[in-house]
Amino acid sequence: MSQFIAEKIVRWEAGVVRNDTDELAEEEPLEIRVRGRAISVTMRTPGHDDELAAGFLRTEGIIRQASDIGKIEPCERNEFGNVINVQLAPEVPVDFSQLTRHVFASSSCGLCGKATIDSIRTRFPPIENESLKIRAAVLTTMPDEMRKAQSTFDRTGGLHAAAIFSPEGKLIVLREDVGRHNAVDKVIGHALMHGLMPLAENVLLVSGRTSFEIIQKALAGRIPLIAAISAPSSLAVRFAAENNQTLIGFLRSNRMNIYTAPERVLFA
Amino acid sequence: MSQFIAEKIVRWEAGVVRNDTDELAEEEPLEIRVRGRAISVTMRTPGHDDELAAGFLRTEGIIRQASDIGKIEPCERNEFGNVINVQLAPEVPVDFSQLTRHVFASSSCGLCGKATIDSIRTRFPPIENESLKIRAAVLTTMPDEMRKAQSTFDRTGGLHAAAIFSPEGKLIVLREDVGRHNAVDKVIGHALMHGLMPLAENVLLVSGRTSFEIIQKALAGRIPLIAAISAPSSLAVRFAAENNQTLIGFLRSNRMNIYTAPERVLFA
Repeated sequence: MSQFIAEKIVRWEAGVVRNDTDELAEEEPLEIRVRGRAISVTMRTPGHDDELAAGFLRTEGIIRQASDIGKIEPCERNEFGNVINVQLAPEVPVDFSQLTRHVFASSSCGLCGKATIDSIRTRFPPIENESLKIRAAVLTTMPDEMRKAQSTFDRTGGLHAAAIFSPEGKLIVLREDVGRHNAVDKVIGHALMHGLMPLAENVLLVSGRTSFEIIQKALAGRIPLIAAISAPSSLAVRFAAENNQTLIGFLRSNRMNIYTAPERVLFA
Repeated sequence: MSQFIAEKIVRWEAGVVRNDTDELAEEEPLEIRVRGRAISVTMRTPGHDDELAAGFLRTEGIIRQASDIGKIEPCERNEFGNVINVQLAPEVPVDFSQLTRHVFASSSCGLCGKATIDSIRTRFPPIENESLKIRAAVLTTMPDEMRKAQSTFDRTGGLHAAAIFSPEGKLIVLREDVGRHNAVDKVIGHALMHGLMPLAENVLLVSGRTSFEIIQKALAGRIPLIAAISAPSSLAVRFAAENNQTLIGFLRSNRMNIYTAPERVLFA
Protein backbone atom coordinates (compact mmCIF):
# COMPACT_ATOMS: atom_id res chain seq x y z
CA MET A 1 0.00 0.00 0.00
CA SER A 2 1.45 3.34 -1.00
CA GLN A 3 1.75 6.26 1.39
CA PHE A 4 1.79 8.69 -1.52
CA ILE A 5 -0.45 9.63 -4.42
CA ALA A 6 0.64 11.73 -7.39
CA GLU A 7 -1.87 14.39 -8.41
CA LYS A 8 -1.99 16.65 -11.44
CA ILE A 9 -1.79 20.24 -10.31
CA VAL A 10 -1.51 23.76 -11.65
CA ARG A 11 1.64 25.40 -10.32
CA TRP A 12 1.94 29.19 -10.20
CA GLU A 13 5.27 30.71 -9.37
CA ALA A 14 6.49 34.29 -9.88
CA GLY A 15 3.74 34.90 -12.42
CA VAL A 16 4.31 31.74 -14.47
CA VAL A 17 1.56 29.09 -14.70
CA ARG A 18 2.29 25.49 -15.63
CA ASN A 19 0.78 22.04 -15.35
CA ASP A 20 2.73 19.74 -13.08
CA THR A 21 2.33 16.87 -10.65
CA ASP A 22 2.68 16.83 -6.88
CA GLU A 23 2.91 13.99 -4.41
CA LEU A 24 0.41 13.88 -1.58
CA ALA A 25 0.39 12.07 1.72
CA GLU A 26 -2.36 9.50 1.58
CA GLU A 27 -5.31 9.91 3.96
CA GLU A 28 -8.04 7.28 4.17
CA PRO A 29 -10.50 6.18 6.85
CA LEU A 30 -9.76 3.01 8.79
CA GLU A 31 -12.51 1.32 10.74
CA ILE A 32 -11.11 -0.71 13.63
CA ARG A 33 -13.25 -3.61 14.78
CA VAL A 34 -12.87 -5.73 17.88
CA ARG A 35 -14.52 -9.13 17.73
CA GLY A 36 -16.35 -7.92 14.64
CA ARG A 37 -17.74 -4.82 16.32
CA ALA A 38 -16.79 -1.35 15.02
CA ILE A 39 -15.20 0.69 17.78
CA SER A 40 -13.37 3.46 15.95
CA VAL A 41 -12.97 5.20 12.64
CA THR A 42 -9.76 7.15 12.23
CA MET A 43 -8.43 9.11 9.26
CA ARG A 44 -4.99 7.66 8.73
CA THR A 45 -2.18 7.13 6.25
CA PRO A 46 -2.38 3.50 5.03
CA GLY A 47 0.48 1.21 6.04
CA HIS A 48 1.26 -0.53 9.33
CA ASP A 49 -2.48 -0.81 9.98
CA ASP A 50 -1.88 -3.80 12.24
CA GLU A 51 0.42 -1.69 14.41
CA LEU A 52 -2.10 1.13 14.40
CA ALA A 53 -4.88 -1.19 15.56
CA ALA A 54 -2.70 -2.84 18.21
CA GLY A 55 -1.39 0.50 19.48
CA PHE A 56 -4.85 2.03 19.54
CA LEU A 57 -6.24 -0.87 21.57
CA ARG A 58 -3.32 -0.55 23.97
CA THR A 59 -3.53 3.21 24.40
CA GLU A 60 -7.30 2.99 24.89
CA GLY A 61 -6.75 0.43 27.63
CA ILE A 62 -8.60 -2.37 25.83
CA ILE A 63 -5.61 -4.73 25.74
CA ARG A 64 -2.54 -4.97 27.96
CA GLN A 65 -0.11 -7.22 26.12
CA ALA A 66 0.63 -8.84 22.78
CA SER A 67 -0.88 -12.16 23.86
CA ASP A 68 -4.24 -10.45 24.28
CA ILE A 69 -4.41 -10.33 20.49
CA GLY A 70 -5.50 -13.52 18.76
CA LYS A 71 -5.24 -12.33 15.19
CA ILE A 72 -5.34 -9.04 13.31
CA GLU A 73 -7.17 -9.71 10.07
CA PRO A 74 -5.97 -8.05 6.89
CA CYS A 75 -7.77 -5.03 5.55
CA GLU A 76 -10.87 -5.36 3.48
CA ARG A 77 -10.95 -2.46 1.05
CA ASN A 78 -14.34 -1.09 0.22
CA GLU A 79 -15.77 1.96 -1.46
CA PHE A 80 -15.54 4.08 1.63
CA GLY A 81 -12.28 3.04 3.17
CA ASN A 82 -10.64 0.19 4.96
CA VAL A 83 -11.64 -2.13 7.72
CA ILE A 84 -9.42 -4.10 10.09
CA ASN A 85 -10.69 -6.65 12.58
CA VAL A 86 -8.87 -7.63 15.76
CA GLN A 87 -9.68 -11.06 17.15
CA LEU A 88 -8.82 -10.98 20.83
CA ALA A 89 -7.79 -14.01 22.83
CA PRO A 90 -11.01 -15.59 24.16
CA GLU A 91 -10.25 -14.84 27.83
CA VAL A 92 -9.73 -11.09 27.29
CA PRO A 93 -12.64 -9.11 28.68
CA VAL A 94 -13.53 -6.01 26.69
CA ASP A 95 -14.82 -3.06 28.63
CA PHE A 96 -16.30 -0.97 25.86
CA SER A 97 -17.26 1.66 28.41
CA GLN A 98 -13.55 2.54 28.70
CA LEU A 99 -13.46 3.93 25.20
CA THR A 100 -12.72 7.64 25.12
CA ARG A 101 -13.38 10.46 22.79
CA HIS A 102 -12.08 9.23 19.43
CA VAL A 103 -14.04 6.08 19.71
CA PHE A 104 -17.37 5.32 18.24
CA ALA A 105 -19.89 3.30 20.04
CA SER A 106 -21.15 -0.05 18.92
CA SER A 107 -23.13 -0.71 15.80
CA SER A 108 -25.47 -2.70 17.98
CA CYS A 109 -26.75 0.66 19.20
CA GLY A 110 -29.11 2.03 16.57
CA LEU A 111 -28.08 5.60 17.14
CA CYS A 112 -24.36 5.04 17.19
CA GLY A 113 -24.31 2.61 14.30
CA LYS A 114 -24.32 5.54 11.91
CA ALA A 115 -20.92 6.51 13.14
CA THR A 116 -19.08 4.21 10.79
CA ILE A 117 -17.16 4.83 7.62
CA ASP A 118 -20.07 5.67 5.37
CA SER A 119 -21.20 8.45 7.66
CA ILE A 120 -17.95 10.32 7.10
CA ARG A 121 -19.18 11.35 3.69
CA THR A 122 -21.03 14.55 4.15
CA ARG A 123 -24.52 15.68 3.36
CA PHE A 124 -23.88 19.03 1.68
CA PRO A 125 -24.34 19.53 -2.06
CA PRO A 126 -21.37 20.53 -4.29
CA ILE A 127 -20.45 24.18 -4.81
CA GLU A 128 -22.11 25.94 -7.78
CA ASN A 129 -20.04 26.76 -10.83
CA GLU A 130 -20.81 30.45 -10.97
CA SER A 131 -19.25 31.24 -7.61
CA LEU A 132 -16.18 33.34 -6.84
CA LYS A 133 -13.30 34.24 -9.14
CA ILE A 134 -10.19 35.61 -7.49
CA ARG A 135 -6.86 36.99 -8.68
CA ALA A 136 -3.71 35.03 -7.89
CA ALA A 137 -2.04 38.30 -6.86
CA VAL A 138 -4.74 38.80 -4.22
CA LEU A 139 -4.39 35.27 -2.86
CA THR A 140 -0.65 35.67 -2.37
CA THR A 141 -1.18 38.62 -0.02
CA MET A 142 -3.27 36.54 2.38
CA PRO A 143 -0.56 34.58 4.24
CA ASP A 144 1.11 37.84 5.31
CA GLU A 145 -2.23 39.31 6.41
CA MET A 146 -2.90 36.18 8.45
CA ARG A 147 0.53 36.19 10.04
CA LYS A 148 0.20 39.85 11.00
CA ALA A 149 -3.11 39.20 12.72
CA GLN A 150 -1.83 36.00 14.26
CA SER A 151 1.40 37.34 15.68
CA THR A 152 -0.63 39.61 17.93
CA PHE A 153 -2.05 36.55 19.59
CA ASP A 154 0.11 33.53 19.21
CA ARG A 155 3.17 33.89 21.38
CA THR A 156 3.50 30.15 21.87
CA GLY A 157 3.89 28.51 18.48
CA GLY A 158 1.19 26.12 19.60
CA LEU A 159 -1.89 27.37 17.78
CA HIS A 160 -3.45 26.70 14.41
CA ALA A 161 -5.17 29.58 12.65
CA ALA A 162 -8.12 29.78 10.26
CA ALA A 163 -9.27 32.96 8.53
CA ILE A 164 -12.04 34.09 6.20
CA PHE A 165 -11.09 36.60 3.49
CA SER A 166 -13.15 38.67 1.08
CA PRO A 167 -12.47 38.26 -2.68
CA GLU A 168 -10.56 41.57 -2.47
CA GLY A 169 -8.19 40.06 0.09
CA LYS A 170 -9.65 41.71 3.19
CA LEU A 171 -9.37 39.70 6.41
CA ILE A 172 -12.88 39.28 7.82
CA VAL A 173 -12.24 37.06 10.81
CA LEU A 174 -9.32 35.06 12.22
CA ARG A 175 -9.48 32.48 14.99
CA GLU A 176 -6.81 30.34 16.61
CA ASP A 177 -7.01 27.02 18.41
CA VAL A 178 -4.89 24.02 19.40
CA GLY A 179 -7.17 22.04 17.06
CA ARG A 180 -7.31 23.16 13.45
CA HIS A 181 -10.85 21.80 12.99
CA ASN A 182 -11.88 23.99 15.94
CA ALA A 183 -10.31 27.09 14.36
CA VAL A 184 -12.35 26.40 11.21
CA ASP A 185 -15.54 25.79 13.22
CA LYS A 186 -14.97 29.10 15.02
CA VAL A 187 -14.71 31.20 11.85
CA ILE A 188 -17.74 29.47 10.33
CA GLY A 189 -19.64 29.95 13.60
CA HIS A 190 -18.64 33.62 13.58
CA ALA A 191 -19.98 33.98 10.03
CA LEU A 192 -23.21 32.25 11.01
CA MET A 193 -23.76 34.45 14.05
CA HIS A 194 -22.94 37.67 12.15
CA GLY A 195 -25.14 37.17 9.10
CA LEU A 196 -22.26 36.39 6.75
CA MET A 197 -23.53 33.01 5.56
CA PRO A 198 -23.31 31.50 3.03
CA LEU A 199 -19.62 32.21 2.47
CA ALA A 200 -20.03 31.66 -1.27
CA GLU A 201 -17.83 34.62 -2.21
CA ASN A 202 -15.11 33.99 0.36
CA VAL A 203 -11.78 32.28 0.84
CA LEU A 204 -10.86 30.10 3.81
CA LEU A 205 -7.15 30.20 4.68
CA VAL A 206 -5.65 27.74 7.16
CA SER A 207 -2.19 28.00 8.69
CA GLY A 208 -1.11 24.40 8.37
CA ARG A 209 -2.01 21.30 6.40
CA THR A 210 -5.37 20.50 4.87
CA SER A 211 -7.15 17.31 5.79
CA PHE A 212 -10.41 15.87 4.50
CA GLU A 213 -12.16 17.26 7.55
CA ILE A 214 -11.21 20.88 6.81
CA ILE A 215 -12.60 20.64 3.27
CA GLN A 216 -15.79 19.05 4.57
CA LYS A 217 -16.29 21.86 7.05
CA ALA A 218 -15.64 24.45 4.33
CA LEU A 219 -18.30 22.75 2.19
CA ALA A 220 -20.77 23.07 5.05
CA GLY A 221 -20.01 26.82 5.07
CA ARG A 222 -20.45 26.85 1.25
CA ILE A 223 -16.86 28.09 0.82
CA PRO A 224 -15.71 27.64 -2.80
CA LEU A 225 -11.96 28.19 -2.27
CA ILE A 226 -9.74 26.79 0.47
CA ALA A 227 -6.08 27.78 0.68
CA ALA A 228 -3.40 26.53 3.06
CA ILE A 229 0.18 27.38 3.90
CA SER A 230 1.16 23.70 3.81
CA ALA A 231 0.25 20.49 1.99
CA PRO A 232 -3.17 18.88 1.52
CA SER A 233 -3.81 15.17 2.02
CA SER A 234 -4.93 12.90 -0.81
CA LEU A 235 -8.46 12.70 0.56
CA ALA A 236 -8.70 16.49 0.95
CA VAL A 237 -7.96 16.79 -2.78
CA ARG A 238 -10.38 14.01 -3.76
CA PHE A 239 -13.19 15.47 -1.66
CA ALA A 240 -12.60 19.02 -2.95
CA ALA A 241 -12.68 17.73 -6.55
CA GLU A 242 -15.94 15.84 -5.96
CA ASN A 243 -17.56 18.96 -4.56
CA ASN A 244 -16.26 21.50 -7.05
CA GLN A 245 -14.16 23.31 -4.46
CA THR A 246 -10.88 25.01 -5.37
CA LEU A 247 -8.06 23.73 -3.18
CA ILE A 248 -4.73 25.53 -2.98
CA GLY A 249 -1.65 24.42 -1.04
CA PHE A 250 1.77 25.90 -0.27
CA LEU A 251 0.36 29.42 -0.67
CA ARG A 252 3.21 31.91 -0.25
CA SER A 253 3.91 35.48 -1.30
CA ASN A 254 5.00 34.45 -4.80
CA ARG A 255 3.74 30.93 -5.40
CA MET A 256 0.97 28.38 -4.95
CA ASN A 257 -0.09 24.87 -5.99
CA ILE A 258 -3.67 24.55 -7.24
CA TYR A 259 -4.97 21.03 -6.77
CA THR A 260 -8.59 21.33 -7.90
CA ALA A 261 -10.95 23.66 -9.83
CA PRO A 262 -8.21 26.09 -10.97
CA GLU A 263 -10.71 28.07 -13.09
CA ARG A 264 -11.60 30.17 -10.03
CA VAL A 265 -8.08 31.63 -9.95
CA LEU A 266 -7.36 34.47 -12.40
CA PHE A 267 -3.71 34.67 -13.37
CA ALA A 268 -3.86 37.83 -15.49
CA MET B 1 -10.69 33.59 29.43
CA SER B 2 -6.99 33.51 28.61
CA GLN B 3 -5.60 31.66 25.63
CA PHE B 4 -2.21 31.38 27.30
CA ILE B 5 -0.79 29.95 30.48
CA ALA B 6 2.68 30.74 31.81
CA GLU B 7 4.60 27.69 33.04
CA LYS B 8 7.86 27.40 34.94
CA ILE B 9 10.37 25.52 32.84
CA VAL B 10 14.00 24.48 32.78
CA ARG B 11 15.70 25.91 29.71
CA TRP B 12 18.86 24.32 28.36
CA GLU B 13 20.77 26.11 25.65
CA ALA B 14 24.32 25.56 24.45
CA GLY B 15 25.17 23.74 27.65
CA VAL B 16 23.71 26.33 30.03
CA VAL B 17 20.78 25.37 32.30
CA ARG B 18 18.47 27.96 33.82
CA ASN B 19 15.02 28.28 35.30
CA ASP B 20 12.65 30.33 33.19
CA THR B 21 8.99 30.64 32.22
CA ASP B 22 7.30 29.83 28.93
CA GLU B 23 3.85 30.65 27.61
CA LEU B 24 1.67 27.79 26.46
CA ALA B 25 -1.39 27.65 24.27
CA GLU B 26 -4.29 26.65 26.45
CA GLU B 27 -5.99 23.31 25.73
CA GLU B 28 -9.12 22.25 27.60
CA PRO B 29 -12.04 19.96 26.85
CA LEU B 30 -15.35 21.51 25.83
CA GLU B 31 -18.52 19.46 26.01
CA ILE B 32 -21.12 20.73 23.56
CA ARG B 33 -24.73 20.01 24.46
CA VAL B 34 -27.81 20.43 22.32
CA ARG B 35 -31.07 20.73 24.24
CA GLY B 36 -29.16 19.58 27.31
CA ARG B 37 -27.85 16.44 25.66
CA ALA B 38 -24.08 15.94 25.25
CA ILE B 39 -23.18 15.45 21.60
CA SER B 40 -19.47 16.21 21.44
CA VAL B 41 -16.34 16.66 23.50
CA THR B 42 -13.55 18.50 21.75
CA MET B 43 -10.12 19.53 23.01
CA ARG B 44 -9.98 23.23 22.28
CA THR B 45 -8.40 26.55 23.19
CA PRO B 46 -10.88 28.49 25.36
CA GLY B 47 -12.36 31.63 23.86
CA HIS B 48 -15.11 32.12 21.27
CA ASP B 49 -16.81 28.99 22.55
CA ASP B 50 -20.17 30.24 21.27
CA GLU B 51 -18.72 30.50 17.76
CA LEU B 52 -17.17 27.07 18.13
CA ALA B 53 -20.47 25.54 19.15
CA ALA B 54 -22.43 27.34 16.41
CA GLY B 55 -19.86 26.46 13.75
CA PHE B 56 -19.69 22.85 14.88
CA LEU B 57 -23.47 22.47 14.71
CA ARG B 58 -23.43 24.01 11.23
CA THR B 59 -20.59 21.92 9.86
CA GLU B 60 -22.17 18.78 11.29
CA GLY B 61 -25.41 19.64 9.51
CA ILE B 62 -27.46 19.99 12.71
CA ILE B 63 -28.43 23.62 12.08
CA ARG B 64 -28.70 25.61 8.87
CA GLN B 65 -28.94 29.24 9.92
CA ALA B 66 -28.48 31.62 12.84
CA SER B 67 -32.22 31.64 13.61
CA ASP B 68 -32.04 27.90 14.35
CA ILE B 69 -30.20 28.85 17.54
CA GLY B 70 -32.36 29.99 20.42
CA LYS B 71 -29.64 30.70 22.94
CA ILE B 72 -26.07 29.59 23.59
CA GLU B 73 -25.67 29.35 27.32
CA PRO B 74 -22.44 30.50 28.93
CA CYS B 75 -19.87 27.96 29.97
CA GLU B 76 -20.11 26.18 33.23
CA ARG B 77 -16.59 25.44 34.45
CA ASN B 78 -16.12 22.24 36.33
CA GLU B 79 -13.26 20.10 37.50
CA PHE B 80 -12.83 18.37 34.19
CA GLY B 81 -13.47 21.10 31.68
CA ASN B 82 -16.16 23.27 30.27
CA VAL B 83 -19.69 22.73 29.14
CA ILE B 84 -21.73 24.82 26.70
CA ASN B 85 -25.40 24.25 25.98
CA VAL B 86 -27.15 25.27 22.77
CA GLN B 87 -30.88 25.82 23.01
CA LEU B 88 -32.27 25.42 19.51
CA ALA B 89 -35.40 27.12 18.26
CA PRO B 90 -38.34 24.82 19.13
CA GLU B 91 -39.19 24.00 15.51
CA VAL B 92 -35.68 22.80 14.61
CA PRO B 93 -35.59 19.02 14.24
CA VAL B 94 -32.36 17.40 15.39
CA ASP B 95 -31.23 14.35 13.50
CA PHE B 96 -28.64 12.97 15.88
CA SER B 97 -27.95 10.17 13.43
CA GLN B 98 -26.21 12.72 11.18
CA LEU B 99 -23.39 13.17 13.64
CA THR B 100 -20.05 12.04 12.26
CA ARG B 101 -16.80 10.87 13.68
CA HIS B 102 -15.90 13.55 16.24
CA VAL B 103 -19.25 13.31 17.84
CA PHE B 104 -20.24 11.34 20.83
CA ALA B 105 -23.55 9.65 21.07
CA SER B 106 -26.18 10.53 23.58
CA SER B 107 -25.89 10.08 27.29
CA SER B 108 -29.28 8.42 27.12
CA CYS B 109 -27.45 5.41 25.69
CA GLY B 110 -25.80 3.59 28.58
CA LEU B 111 -22.78 2.62 26.55
CA CYS B 112 -22.16 5.98 24.96
CA GLY B 113 -22.83 8.01 28.06
CA LYS B 114 -19.32 7.29 29.24
CA ALA B 115 -17.97 9.29 26.37
CA THR B 116 -18.14 12.59 28.16
CA ILE B 117 -15.49 14.78 29.71
CA ASP B 118 -14.73 12.70 32.76
CA SER B 119 -13.88 9.68 30.63
CA ILE B 120 -11.09 11.62 28.95
CA ARG B 121 -9.03 11.14 32.08
CA THR B 122 -7.14 7.99 31.57
CA ARG B 123 -6.84 4.79 33.53
CA PHE B 124 -3.09 4.28 33.63
CA PRO B 125 -1.06 4.79 36.81
CA PRO B 126 1.73 7.41 36.95
CA ILE B 127 5.27 6.57 35.87
CA GLU B 128 7.60 5.24 38.58
CA ASN B 129 10.34 7.46 39.92
CA GLU B 130 13.23 5.09 39.28
CA SER B 131 12.79 5.05 35.52
CA LEU B 132 15.11 6.37 32.82
CA LYS B 133 17.83 8.99 33.12
CA ILE B 134 19.16 10.41 29.89
CA ARG B 135 21.88 12.86 28.90
CA ALA B 136 20.88 16.17 27.34
CA ALA B 137 23.61 15.69 24.74
CA VAL B 138 21.94 12.44 23.64
CA LEU B 139 18.49 14.00 23.41
CA THR B 140 19.74 16.77 21.13
CA THR B 141 20.92 14.23 18.54
CA MET B 142 17.42 12.77 18.14
CA PRO B 143 15.78 15.41 15.92
CA ASP B 144 18.47 14.91 13.27
CA GLU B 145 18.13 11.14 13.49
CA MET B 146 14.40 11.45 13.03
CA ARG B 147 14.72 13.83 10.11
CA LYS B 148 17.19 11.53 8.37
CA ALA B 149 14.84 8.58 8.68
CA GLN B 150 11.85 10.71 7.75
CA SER B 151 13.30 12.33 4.67
CA THR B 152 13.48 8.90 3.09
CA PHE B 153 9.73 8.67 3.25
CA ASP B 154 8.08 12.02 3.47
CA ARG B 155 8.32 13.76 0.14
CA THR B 156 5.07 15.66 0.68
CA GLY B 157 5.45 17.76 3.80
CA GLY B 158 2.09 16.33 4.84
CA LEU B 159 3.04 13.73 7.42
CA HIS B 160 3.59 13.77 11.17
CA ALA B 161 6.27 11.47 12.57
CA ALA B 162 6.64 9.64 15.87
CA ALA B 163 9.73 7.69 16.91
CA ILE B 164 10.90 5.54 19.81
CA PHE B 165 14.54 5.92 20.86
CA SER B 166 16.76 3.96 23.22
CA PRO B 167 18.39 5.82 26.15
CA GLU B 168 21.62 5.78 24.09
CA GLY B 169 19.90 7.69 21.31
CA LYS B 170 19.36 4.77 18.92
CA LEU B 171 16.27 5.02 16.73
CA ILE B 172 14.17 1.88 17.32
CA VAL B 173 11.12 2.59 15.18
CA LEU B 174 9.71 5.54 13.24
CA ARG B 175 6.22 5.82 11.79
CA GLU B 176 4.52 8.58 9.83
CA ASP B 177 0.87 9.47 9.41
CA VAL B 178 -1.42 12.36 8.48
CA GLY B 179 -2.66 12.10 12.09
CA ARG B 180 -0.08 12.57 14.82
CA HIS B 181 -2.08 10.40 17.26
CA ASN B 182 -1.97 7.62 14.64
CA ALA B 183 1.81 7.91 14.29
CA VAL B 184 2.09 7.47 18.08
CA ASP B 185 -0.35 4.54 18.10
CA LYS B 186 1.72 2.90 15.34
CA VAL B 187 5.03 3.05 17.23
CA ILE B 188 3.37 1.82 20.43
CA GLY B 189 1.63 -0.94 18.45
CA HIS B 190 4.99 -1.87 16.92
CA ALA B 191 6.54 -2.09 20.38
CA LEU B 192 3.66 -4.23 21.61
CA MET B 193 3.88 -6.64 18.67
CA HIS B 194 7.68 -6.94 18.92
CA GLY B 195 8.02 -7.63 22.64
CA LEU B 196 9.39 -4.18 23.48
CA MET B 197 6.74 -3.25 26.06
CA PRO B 198 6.75 -1.61 28.50
CA LEU B 199 8.76 1.28 27.03
CA ALA B 200 9.93 2.30 30.50
CA GLU B 201 13.51 2.99 29.36
CA ASN B 202 12.62 4.78 26.14
CA VAL B 203 12.01 8.21 24.68
CA LEU B 204 9.09 9.14 22.43
CA LEU B 205 9.92 11.90 19.95
CA VAL B 206 7.17 13.57 17.90
CA SER B 207 7.74 15.87 14.95
CA GLY B 208 5.23 18.58 15.77
CA ARG B 209 3.33 19.90 18.75
CA THR B 210 2.34 17.94 21.83
CA SER B 211 -1.28 17.73 22.86
CA PHE B 212 -2.88 16.11 25.88
CA GLU B 213 -3.69 13.09 23.75
CA ILE B 214 -0.06 12.36 22.84
CA ILE B 215 0.97 12.38 26.51
CA GLN B 216 -1.95 10.13 27.40
CA LYS B 217 -0.93 7.62 24.73
CA ALA B 218 2.69 7.73 25.91
CA LEU B 219 1.48 6.97 29.45
CA ALA B 220 -0.37 3.92 28.14
CA GLY B 221 2.95 2.76 26.65
CA ARG B 222 4.64 3.52 30.03
CA ILE B 223 6.98 6.01 28.32
CA PRO B 224 8.67 8.25 30.94
CA LEU B 225 10.03 10.92 28.57
CA ILE B 226 8.28 12.63 25.67
CA ALA B 227 10.12 15.13 23.48
CA ALA B 228 8.79 17.24 20.62
CA ILE B 229 10.20 19.56 18.00
CA SER B 230 7.48 22.14 18.71
CA ALA B 231 5.42 23.45 21.61
CA PRO B 232 3.24 21.53 24.06
CA SER B 233 -0.25 22.62 25.06
CA SER B 234 -1.14 23.62 28.61
CA LEU B 235 -3.04 20.39 29.19
CA ALA B 236 -0.17 18.26 27.86
CA VAL B 237 2.06 19.83 30.52
CA ARG B 238 -0.51 19.45 33.28
CA PHE B 239 -1.17 15.82 32.41
CA ALA B 240 2.56 14.99 32.17
CA ALA B 241 3.17 16.61 35.58
CA GLU B 242 0.31 14.63 37.17
CA ASN B 243 1.73 11.38 35.85
CA ASN B 244 5.41 11.98 36.55
CA GLN B 245 6.34 12.08 32.88
CA THR B 246 9.19 14.27 31.59
CA LEU B 247 7.96 16.57 28.82
CA ILE B 248 10.39 18.40 26.56
CA GLY B 249 9.52 20.90 23.83
CA PHE B 250 11.43 22.79 21.14
CA LEU B 251 14.08 20.07 21.11
CA ARG B 252 16.82 21.14 18.68
CA SER B 253 20.49 20.31 18.14
CA ASN B 254 21.62 22.75 20.87
CA ARG B 255 18.60 23.55 23.02
CA MET B 256 15.41 22.34 24.68
CA ASN B 257 12.69 23.46 27.09
CA ILE B 258 11.91 21.01 29.90
CA TYR B 259 8.38 21.46 31.16
CA THR B 260 8.03 18.66 33.71
CA ALA B 261 10.14 16.17 35.71
CA PRO B 262 13.53 17.63 34.68
CA GLU B 263 15.40 15.26 37.03
CA ARG B 264 15.42 12.60 34.28
CA VAL B 265 17.67 14.78 32.13
CA LEU B 266 21.39 14.77 32.97
CA PHE B 267 23.14 17.98 32.00
CA ALA B 268 26.70 16.97 32.94
